[in-house]
Amino acid sequence: MGSTLNDYTVKDALLFSQRMMQLSKAFWKSIEKDWEQWIKPYDLAINEHHILWITYYLKDASISEIAKFGIMHISTAFNFSKKLEERGYLQFFKKENDRRNTYIQLTEKGKELLLKLFEDYDPLQNSVCKEALSLQHVYGKFPDMIEIMAVVRNIYGDDFIGIFERSLERIEKDFVEEDGRLKKGG
Amino acid sequence: MGSTLNDYTVKDALLFSQRMMQLSKAFWKSIEKDWEQWIKPYDLAINEHHILWITYYLKDASISEIAKFGIMHISTAFNFSKKLEERGYLQFFKKENDRRNTYIQLTEKGKELLLKLFEDYDPLQNSVCKEALSLQHVYGKFPDMIEIMAVVRNIYGDDFIGIFERSLERIEKDFVEEDGRLKKGG
Repeated sequence: MGSTLNDYTVKDALLFSQRMMQLSKAFWKSIEKDWEQWIKPYDLAINEHHILWITYYLKDASISEIAKFGIMHISTAFNFSKKLEERGYLQFFKKENDRRNTYIQLTEKGKELLLKLFEDYDPLQNSVCKEALSLQHVYGKFPDMIEIMAVVRNIYGDDFIGIFERSLERIEKDFVEEDGRLKKGG
Repeated sequence: MGSTLNDYTVKDALLFSQRMMQLSKAFWKSIEKDWEQWIKPYDLAINEHHILWITYYLKDASISEIAKFGIMHISTAFNFSKKLEERGYLQFFKKENDRRNTYIQLTEKGKELLLKLFEDYDPLQNSVCKEALSLQHVYGKFPDMIEIMAVVRNIYGDDFIGIFERSLERIEKDFVEEDGRLKKGG
């Protein structure tokens, strides 16, 4: 069969692609809406919140790290960071041993904002979380989405996934009490 | 435990949400890039291609159906449809029994464009498809992403998923030869 690439056909690939295009658009649009809803009281854009969050868990971050882990263009990362600096949530600095790159770190005000946002988090206001509860009931845990994880790992690389996993560990360490409640007050 | 909602903690929910936010952003950004790359030679935006595709498999579609199945605002659906009409790819019409809604249908030129795009499809130019091949090798098929499907079904409803599945069946029927190759010529 001239159409066979190893052991799949162009049809298999096309149907998979079409499925992923429609599914991931639908899924992302819901995530995006929840995310916007969550940060709206603080007048933040998704990219801004993402920058604060990355800067928090990396301690300090270069603009190119922000762009990489936030999946945004360098110029987007820079422009949103500037806006956050103007609002007093983070500051730019240079490192002694690396004068070429610009780094950013959170201010106290930035850390407080991030903590406040975690405090505000309400699973039942989050449609993706709410609609994943039927899976949680069936399996006794929220889905891991290991297939997507595998594809994202192949595309973005091991260090992307490594940092991603570490960011989740930081939430557990810094924002969650031992009994699973969220910490209150900063 | 005051923190327990049924049988999960706020921590479980928060970690799940954070995982989904970062994962679905990363995944969607790759899908988006592939999609843009694929349709770029025809000077189309993703929403425009999506509108052509929905109109094709629904035969004719109202603007609100386009918005629903394309996951876009009504005004976005309308504006992009207008642009496609100006380029001769689709036409607006009213139905005798439904004068209130505006419907659209593809022109011959629109159908040709869509067929040409399926002909152009190349799995190895598609990074998501390429990077899912390791899963395809392990399991003998591309991943179904059933967990995401379940969540999307809960959020968007059974008719959304029903139409979605029918759109994939149409690809098989109309664009693929029996041996899995893509049809050539319109």
